[in-house]
This record gives sequence, C-alpha cells and structure tokens, in this order.
Amino acid sequence: MLEVGIVGGSGYGAIELIRLLNQHKEVTVKYVFSHSKSGEQIKETYPHLQDNIHVPFSSLDIETVDCDLIFFATPSNVSKQFIPGLLERNIKVIDLSGDFRIKNPDTYEQFYGERPAEQSILDQAEYSIAEWSKVTKDTNLIANPGCFPTATLLSLHPLLAQKCINKDSIIIDAKTGVSGAGRSLSQNVHYGEVNENLSAYKLGTHKHTPEIEQYLSLVSNSDVKVTFSPHLVPMTRGILTTIYVDLNEPITGEALHELYKETYRDKPFVRVRSYGELPKTKEVLGSNFCDIGIYVDEDRNKAVIVSVIDNLVKGASGQAIQNMNLLYGFNENEGLNLLPVYP
Amino acid sequence: MLEVGIVGGSGYGAIELIRLLNQHKEVTVKYVFSHSKSGEQIKETYPHLQDNIHVPFSSLDIETVDCDLIFFATPSNVSKQFIPGLLERNIKVIDLSGDFRIKNPDTYEQFYGERPAEQSILDQAEYSIAEWSKVTKDTNLIANPGCFPTATLLSLHPLLAQKCINKDSIIIDAKTGVSGAGRSLSQNVHYGEVNENLSAYKLGTHKHTPEIEQYLSLVSNSDVKVTFSPHLVPMTRGILTTIYVDLNEPITGEALHELYKETYRDKPFVRVRSYGELPKTKEVLGSNFCDIGIYVDEDRNKAVIVSVIDNLVKGASGQAIQNMNLLYGFNENEGLNLLPVYP
Amino acid sequence: MLEVGIVGGSGYGAIELIRLLNQHKEVTVKYVFSHSKSGEQIKETYPHLQDNIHVPFSSLDIETVDCDLIFFATPSNVSKQFIPGLLERNIKVIDLSGDFRIKNPDTYEQFYGERPAEQSILDQAEYSIAEWSKVTKDTNLIANPGCFPTATLLSLHPLLAQKCINKDSIIIDAKTGVSGAGRSLSQNVHYGEVNENLSAYKLGTHKHTPEIEQYLSLVSNSDVKVTFSPHLVPMTRGILTTIYVDLNEPITGEALHELYKETYRDKPFVRVRSYGELPKTKEVLGSNFCDIGIYVDEDRNKAVIVSVIDNLVKGASGQAIQNMNLLYGFNENEGLNLLPVYP
Amino acid sequence: MLEVGIVGGSGYGAIELIRLLNQHKEVTVKYVFSHSKSGEQIKETYPHLQDNIHVPFSSLDIETVDCDLIFFATPSNVSKQFIPGLLERNIKVIDLSGDFRIKNPDTYEQFYGERPAEQSILDQAEYSIAEWSKVTKDTNLIANPGCFPTATLLSLHPLLAQKCINKDSIIIDAKTGVSGAGRSLSQNVHYGEVNENLSAYKLGTHKHTPEIEQYLSLVSNSDVKVTFSPHLVPMTRGILTTIYVDLNEPITGEALHELYKETYRDKPFVRVRSYGELPKTKEVLGSNFCDIGIYVDEDRNKAVIVSVIDNLVKGASGQAIQNMNLLYGFNENEGLNLLPVYP
Repeated sequence: MLEVGIVGGSGYGAIELIRLLNQHKEVTVKYVFSHSKSGEQIKETYPHLQDNIHVPFSSLDIETVDCDLIFFATPSNVSKQFIPGLLERNIKVIDLSGDFRIKNPDTYEQFYGERPAEQSILDQAEYSIAEWSKVTKDTNLIANPGCFPTATLLSLHPLLAQKCINKDSIIIDAKTGVSGAGRSLSQNVHYGEVNENLSAYKLGTHKHTPEIEQYLSLVSNSDVKVTFSPHLVPMTRGILTTIYVDLNEPITGEALHELYKETYRDKPFVRVRSYGELPKTKEVLGSNFCDIGIYVDEDRNKAVIVSVIDNLVKGASGQAIQNMNLLYGFNENEGLNLLPVYP
Repeated sequence: MLEVGIVGGSGYGAIELIRLLNQHKEVTVKYVFSHSKSGEQIKETYPHLQDNIHVPFSSLDIETVDCDLIFFATPSNVSKQFIPGLLERNIKVIDLSGDFRIKNPDTYEQFYGERPAEQSILDQAEYSIAEWSKVTKDTNLIANPGCFPTATLLSLHPLLAQKCINKDSIIIDAKTGVSGAGRSLSQNVHYGEVNENLSAYKLGTHKHTPEIEQYLSLVSNSDVKVTFSPHLVPMTRGILTTIYVDLNEPITGEALHELYKETYRDKPFVRVRSYGELPKTKEVLGSNFCDIGIYVDEDRNKAVIVSVIDNLVKGASGQAIQNMNLLYGFNENEGLNLLPVYP
Repeated sequence: MLEVGIVGGSGYGAIELIRLLNQHKEVTVKYVFSHSKSGEQIKETYPHLQDNIHVPFSSLDIETVDCDLIFFATPSNVSKQFIPGLLERNIKVIDLSGDFRIKNPDTYEQFYGERPAEQSILDQAEYSIAEWSKVTKDTNLIANPGCFPTATLLSLHPLLAQKCINKDSIIIDAKTGVSGAGRSLSQNVHYGEVNENLSAYKLGTHKHTPEIEQYLSLVSNSDVKVTFSPHLVPMTRGILTTIYVDLNEPITGEALHELYKETYRDKPFVRVRSYGELPKTKEVLGSNFCDIGIYVDEDRNKAVIVSVIDNLVKGASGQAIQNMNLLYGFNENEGLNLLPVYP
Repeated sequence: MLEVGIVGGSGYGAIELIRLLNQHKEVTVKYVFSHSKSGEQIKETYPHLQDNIHVPFSSLDIETVDCDLIFFATPSNVSKQFIPGLLERNIKVIDLSGDFRIKNPDTYEQFYGERPAEQSILDQAEYSIAEWSKVTKDTNLIANPGCFPTATLLSLHPLLAQKCINKDSIIIDAKTGVSGAGRSLSQNVHYGEVNENLSAYKLGTHKHTPEIEQYLSLVSNSDVKVTFSPHLVPMTRGILTTIYVDLNEPITGEALHELYKETYRDKPFVRVRSYGELPKTKEVLGSNFCDIGIYVDEDRNKAVIVSVIDNLVKGASGQAIQNMNLLYGFNENEGLNLLPVYP
C-alpha cells in the first residue's frame, strides 16, 4: 500500500482527497496535517469523517515524516516552503496549490505576491492536466492545475493544437461555485452575501490567467493572451466555462464536434456531448468528469465551447489522484470510479 | 386615479406589477385577469396578497372592460389576440410580452413560431427602453422590453451611439435567475434540477437575440449581429450580463467610464459604478435599478461591460411602470422609489 | 421631520432600517454610526445604497449627537454602555439588541455573559411586541423583541391569555434563515457550510429562551418554562416557528381559529390564515407581516401553531419602526406599507 | 453476479440505485424500466449517466422479465399491480414505495386512496428498517421504509424498546429537502416557490404517519399515536427530524446517550454523536449514514432526539441496497462504503 500524507487538512481540498482516497485500493492515508488544528481529532472539525479517519491532525515535520507521497492542499505560498526539503528526502509531492504552476518567476510574483521557489525546483515541477500529462514514474513533483484552468484547457487544447482559431480572440467567461474560495472566512463567502447573488470579480487580475496563458502558449507554440472573467455563482460546487473563439476558417458544427470526439476518444474522464447538447454542472457533481458541449455559429464563424467540472474533484483533488495514478502506474480511474451525485 | 387592469394575473410579472403599483399614488388596480383561475380569489393562489387585493381573478372581455390602461404579462402569442380590440376602444396597453417587440414579421415567426399581429398594429407599438424612450401622451401601445435586452441595451447603447466599438465583435454572456422562466411548470424549473446546478441554454436560438439585434441596428444605423448566450443560475431573481467588445481605437478605462457616467447622469435608475467596481445582482434586488460596471483591457483594446438588473423589476414590471409614468407624465420614479432588499 | 440615528450601521439590522425608513414620510436618517467603518462612505460597504444615503459612517459621541431618536442595531452588550448617557440627554432610544429585554439581572448574565445595565435603566425599558405594546409618548427606551420571540409570542399570546393550554407542554421548534446570525464572519455562516445543510443548535441554551419565558410568565401570571429548539435553514431571510401545545379542554379547530381571528382582528400586521391553511416564509418576505396558521388534532387534544415572519423586518427593523410609530403617534403602518417580495 | 432490474427508472430513487449499485461488486443492473420513456436511451434523460449505463429504458413485462431481483422505485399504487406476478415467477422484490408497508388495509386506503394488494401478499412483505431487520434468505418481498420513518424510527426505537418514555408524548418535527417529492412536476417543487421559502405541510395527514405508528406500536407492544409535522426546506437532499418526548423517569443526558451508544454499537450506518453534539444533514449527504444527537432537559424531564439522513440514500435507495445485502448475505456495507460529500 502506498502511504500518503495530506497537508492543509482542515480545508476543502484535503477532505475531498480523503473522501476519494477512501475508495482507492492502493493507498493508505497515514497523515493529515493541519498546523492550525494540530493535535485535534479530525471529527471535531469534520464530524462526517467520524468512524472513518482515526489519525489526528498533526504538524508536518520535514525531517521525520515517513511516507511515499504528500499532497499539498494549502493556500498560496505555503507549499514552496516545504517541498524542497521533502524532495531531498525522496518523498514525492503533488501540489494542489499554485506555487509550482508558473514557470516565469516575475509573473508568479505579480500574481501571487511573493517570489516563487528556486528555479531548480520549479524546473522539476511537471504541470499536469492529466489527459495531456507527461508524468512518468520518475516525476517527483507534480503541479496540479487550478480549477478554472482545468475546465478551460481541456476545452481549448484541441482548437489550439489543430490551429483552428484566431488565438487573439479567446474569451473565457467562467462561473464557479463558492467552494472554490476555500473554507477560510471572508465577507465574500458569507451566506447572506452570496446566496441569491451573482457577480463578476477580478477581471484581468485573477491568478489563473497566467496559468491559462502559459499552457496555451506552449500548446500553440506562440504567445497567447486571453480575456478571462470569473464569476461567483450561488452554489457550492461546480465550474462552467463558456469560451468564445473566432474560427480561422469555416468549419461546420458537426466537423468541430467530431474533432473533440476524436481527441478525447480514449480519455475516460472527458465526455464530449452530442452536438447541440450542453452540459450542466450538476451532471458531473462529485465525480471526476469534465463534460464538453460544442456550438458553432456558422454564419459568423465563431465557436462557443461549454465545459463543466466539479471544481473540488476534476478541478482539484480528483485530478490530483488521477495524476497519482499516472505517477505510480495504477489504473487511471482507481478511486475515481464514482458516478455524479444527482440530483 | 388611473384605473388599470392586469392580464396574466397568476404569473410572476403580474404579481410584481401588483406589488409595485401598491406603492403608486396615481393608480388603482381595477382588474386582475387570469383565464385559468377566473372566479377564484387571488389569495388562494397568492396568500401573500391576503388583505391587500380584494378583486377576484376574472376573464378579460374586450367589449365590456372599462379602464384606462391594461398591462399584459402573458406568455408569447397571447396579447396580439386582444390588443387590436382594446386599441379600438381607446384603452392604452403596455405589453410585457414579446408580441409587439419585433418589427419584421418573418423574424417574429422564426423565433416565436406564429405570425405576429397585423403590420398596422405593429407600427403603433413603441419599443421603449425607458431611458431612451420616445413614448408620449399620444402613444397607445408600448412594447415593454425583455429582461435580457434591457440589461444588454443599457450596457451597449453608449458604445454604439458613440461608434466606439467594432460592431461585429459583440459577445453577450448573460446569466439569469429562474423566475425569468415564469411560474409555469417544466423540468427546467424543478428545484431538484436547478438547485446547485448551472447551465447554458438556447445558444443562437433565444428569442431575445433578434430583439437585441434590432435595437442595436437602429442605434448604430447599420446591421448588427451578436453572439448571445443565456445561462440559468440557481437563484430566483437577477440578471447579470457580461458583455465583451473590441474597441475601435485605444481608450482608457477612465475615459470609457466617463462616457457612461455622462450618458446616464440624469437617469435615476441607471447607476454607473466607480471605475473598477463591479455590480452584483443582489445590489438591485427588488428595485428598478440597472447598475453598470466597466473594465477595459487597455493592452488588448477590449472592454468588458457588466450590468445587473432584477429581471422582474427593471427587466419587466418595474420598467413597465416607468413607461406608464412617461406615458401619463407622472414622476418617473413614482411607485418605484424602493431600495434594494439586502441581504 | 423626526431626526434619527442608527448605531451598528454596517450590520443587517441597520441597513434594513435604512431601507424601510426610506419609505417613511415623517423621518430623516441623520446619522449612521459604525465604529469599525467610521469615516467611510456607506456605499463602499453597501453599493446598493449608492445615490440614496449620503451621510458617511461616523462614530457615536454621546455628548454631541443631536437628534430625536436613536436605533441600536448592535451585538449584545454594546447598547447598555451608551443608552444611559443618551437618556440623560433626553434622546429616546429603540434598542434592537437584547441588552434591555431581560428584567432579571442574573438571568441576563447567565445568557448574555455580562452584568446588564443598572436596574433603574432596566426598569425604564418597555419590552414591546408592537401588537401588545404599552408604549406611550412618555416612553424613553423601548426594548425591541428578538426575532424568535416575536414569531413565538404572537403565536402563544392568545392561548395563554385565554388559559387554553397546559403551560408545561409548550414546545417551540423554530427555524431561521442565516441572516439572523448577522453580518459578522463565523464558520456557521460560511456558504459552503450552510448551503444544502440543515441543523439544530443551542438546544436549551439559546438566549431567546428566557425572553420567551419572561413574557409568557407575565401574560399567564405564572411561571412558564418552554422547550425551545432553534434550527438553521439554508435561506437568507425568514423564520418559521412550529409550536406544539396540549389543550386544557377539548376545543375544535374552528373554535381555536376563531379565537385567533378575533384576537388579531384589528392588528394590521398579523394575518391569521383560513383554518387548515399554513403560511410559508416567502409569503411575508420583505414585509412586516406575521402570518399564523392553526391546526388542532382533536383526537389527541393537541394544537399546532405555525407562524412566519421576515426575521429582519417584523423580527427586527420593521417592528422597531412600528414601535417608533406607536411612540410618536404616527400611523401604525407608516413606512411599513410594503407587500411581500414574491417570488 | 446478481442480476437486477429497476422500475421507475426516470425517477430520483432509480437513479440513486444506479449510482450506488455502480459501486457494488456482486450486482449487475440488467434492466431499467420506465413506462413513460420506454425505448429511449437513459442518457437522454440523465446525461450524467452517459458512458455508464448502456441499457435503454424499457417496459416491464412480468411474463418475460428474466432476473433475480427487482427494485420498485415507483409512485404509490403502482408496485402492487406487478409484484404478485413477479413473486409467482420467483423473482424477489424490494419495494421502495409505500404499497406494502401498511398492514391494515383500511388504514392503507385512508392514506393512499386505494385498496392495497391482497392480504396474502401483504403478509409476505417484510417491513425492514435494516438495523432491526428480520429479513432472511427466504424473504421474497421487502417493504423498504419511507424516508421520514427511517430517520424517526432509528431515533425512537431505543426509547420505546426500553420503555423510557411516555408513549403519548411523541412529537416529530421533521424537515426534508425537496428531492423527497420526487422528479414529477408540481407547483410545490417549482424553484421560484421553494427557494428562499420554508413551510409546514400535511399536518396530521401525511402518509408516513401510519407507517411510523404501526412500527412504534409493534416495538412497544401497545397502541402508539404520534404528532408528525413535515416541513419543506429549500435544499435538494437531507432529512432532519427533531423528536420531543417526555421521559418516564429522570435520566441524565449521559445515561440516555449511553443507551444509544450501546444500542447502535455494532450498526455501521448509525453514528451516535458525542453527548451535546448535534448532527447536520450535510454530514451524511450522499452516504448511507444516519447520525443521531441526544439532548436531555433534566429539569423538565424531556428529551430531544435529532437525527439526520440523506433521504435518497438511507431514506430510500441506500437502505434498499442494505436490505438486499441482508437478503443475499453480502457484506452489509457492500456498495455503500461511501463517505459523505462535503461540502
């Protein structure tokens, strides 16, 4: 059995890892680390884990921790303090935070407010959209993608790889449930402020923007800039991205749909819908699926791609486990073989 | 006192008219018409109106009805059957449905599934975004705008009037609460299907598309086509539109903001936010306000306009009353002087 | 015009006072006090009040404040520090907090954690369920009832006044929306923790328990104890109380219903529903109504009383204005003549 | 592999069976029956099952159906038409509807509006709260309990079995999410009517009342009547019951808590919380757990029992699978080993 630890144990990413790893045959959760709650029983914070998790919250000590793999589900600028030491001790890491996603240190500083880890460590980090992953058994550090980038990049990868679109035309109108903001307190997650309310936020300044641009630039082998507009929706889980692009040449909706079907034929977690059918967030809730719908306005030569994920699963902990499965050669869907919870 | 009747009395548009007219000093609600519930007390359907509305639901009889003005808050293809007869009897009409909004009969048929009213009646209809209205005391028939068009056109009018933007670049990503679908039953409004769910729908086929295009073409004196993508959000009230446009020439965010401030300086129901501040739907809930936020990506020469309304107030019944106030020369905010309900 | 100040200006009680006083013909809001936000514009916190409230947040200075009446919409143990000084300066006070509701200082300390104000000040405080109020123009300090007590006491008053029930049998199962917890941050109001969740809390320890018992003891002229169980429901506004009592003697449902109808015949804000009809919270949302439904299990000689209020209106700011109207002899429904917002 | 069929395939009970059976090692879903959608692909109704369920909806033909076990997740008065024929063919049945729960035909008719099945079939039906089940491998027909009764009876069983309480004092204040009403359309499940709304309904007339009374009478070997008040809460999943009882003799909270702990020590799906800790519905969402909290008002000799379940899992499909596991001697938690989905 693979022994793993989870850092950031009182947050939503961590408890979702616990829920999913509970289904995984090859893994034991040996540690749950939470600095703020060290020494407390997990069930005091999460009574729903009563009778299931018997390790208490503890503090991560790089010197003494003894396991194969550690997941970081921490706020920004935390994991970069611990990961170099863990790598030295040959403990592999999957980082769900943004600390190792951005290759350009100045860009990182601009969006994350601090200098990133040393370049030599950054270079080791494999940014891994699981469906397009280069992770091997020799990978030591995986930068698990952000929630918005996951939904966005799975939608745009086929278009940029095939050079179908004007790369200057990309507009990403993204909508997320509140759990994306984590479990920490702020006025933005107060029920009275969020319920029956809808808003756009951080236009032009969201830290997932450079993550999206870096990946798309890589795929298209050119400099790509996007308009990325996140919105906060009164629901707990779910991301829906509506992506608008100008097509380079006329292409029928059916043909574009066929491109997606073909691209994702062997990817069990990406479900391309029938042409004309649009996915809803609830249709993937609690599961690791990303569902994609295609619409082409043939008169105006524009395409609209709609994708949905559960931000805590495919957008965070589920994809982290999928990446772990790739890393260790487990079945790709081990621990992730869950149908959406509907309704 | 002006005596009015309301048709479609068991629907959400009608009960919102009743709520707002309750605050109006110059108007008495003489009739509430509902064919399906004729003869029943209103409070059997709407106990919240107990002690306030004492007329029963009745059926509209064109020959005998005796009042000054009738509001239609009916589904499509209903009002066109009654309005010609009412106009003959010199009863003015404000139609909240789409029957008289589209000037081109073929376009109407394409999106509404039936032929519209006769051209001579269509020609009498004044489509009235209240802030840009041509309604006078001689107007007999007002086509009250749809909810999405209201939020959209208030956002785009300044840009097209000033020819600031590439008119082929307009993308309208619109999000609405569920009450926009009315009170009728369908799987789409079942709580279990809507709650904790988010979806795009009717891409390229929503009947508000030609209404938006017709108005924008008029304002810009040229043929305008748009990409209009409605989304259904798990909340009862509220519309937020996020509109993306390419600017013709470089313009700073502050300058564009100033254009909006100037345009709406004397319009009490349009509140242009400070530059960089984005409105939320709850900040207008229950009120007749349309709040607008501006963002300019100066590097890429693109603007994003975010607007919010309460779909049942400024997007329907509130604007209908505002139009009535224009029609009869009442104070523009009579009956509409309500602050948003927050939280 | 009566000049008033509001303390606790950034909270939900205060902004609801502002919304309702906006409709009141006899009152001007001269001050909005917020110690945490003193000096800031109100619209920075509440953009929905943009263009409507032009006074900034300021700090309350007992020595220099100059107005007729001050509302306190503050957390526990705040108003008791200021009110004695204001009364000395002949400024009247309506206190929406619990500081002056409990007559027994030891009980106050047990539930509120501090000693209350001096007895001489406590004695001046008039606890005022508006429908049963003893407020006169000579009253200087009104203790405005809590939200749960308002819904509960309007339900139970007729039964205890008429000695219909076994006073030891009272069970109050109360359900509230989240806004009752105020605008402050805590894990209990985090959207992710509240949405799609339902819980009971503070069984036997909620501070509204002694307030209910004190009033019922007074009405029945005997010592009354109750079982009071609050529940938190995933919605913003609304309280529904389901109250179970054993009847002393057999009484038909119709007869009990008639008692309620008779009792509240001249009370415009209490609407007794037809026998067999049960009220819903949305049917009073945004309004000052308390709607009451009656059910009698004649076989088992038990009655169930169901009442609903908007916790921020009849349960707080609306009743405070109703009490102000009584205090100054204004029309009872001045400023409160608003229909529920439905849906 | 056990081959099963599911009747009522387009409803919420059926799709929850499909979700859970997807995790079950010993079972294959051979048929999904839906008379209204016979011949359609399941994914047309439930796109979230795309790629997972490949049998189409079909019609149940008693003569030709060929499998081991059939689940009925149908409205009232449907399964009784089919089950006698299936039993004759030696196909076992687990009925999630109410058709075989009530032993007294007149009571059935009073609450369900029709005569029940013949007495000989009724007699075969084993009503099975899984924790107190008498199901054996020879059982042919299981009457799976209702959602409210499950939460209620697990709470009350220890008290009545131990004769701790006055059996005439039982009050059950029950609150449910909307999915309990099923997927059919009615004004009561319209999002606009349910969201931000809370109501009591069917006081004294809910069909789960006789089911609860029948079971409690059996356990206590005496005639038990209860006050049962259901409430509709604006959330999709979850039931919370708050149960009030008078204790026969003084008993401390700790002692009562110990009784529950002892009673459910070996029942993996009933989690008795620490004394003073109250469960929330989200803490069991998506799982088969029933969590129970205890409070004793020692002064007044009353106890309050709070229990939570997911109405679609422990309250329906999960308990049905648990009963199937008992029937076939599978591990009790096979297919049910899922942690709650939180948040």
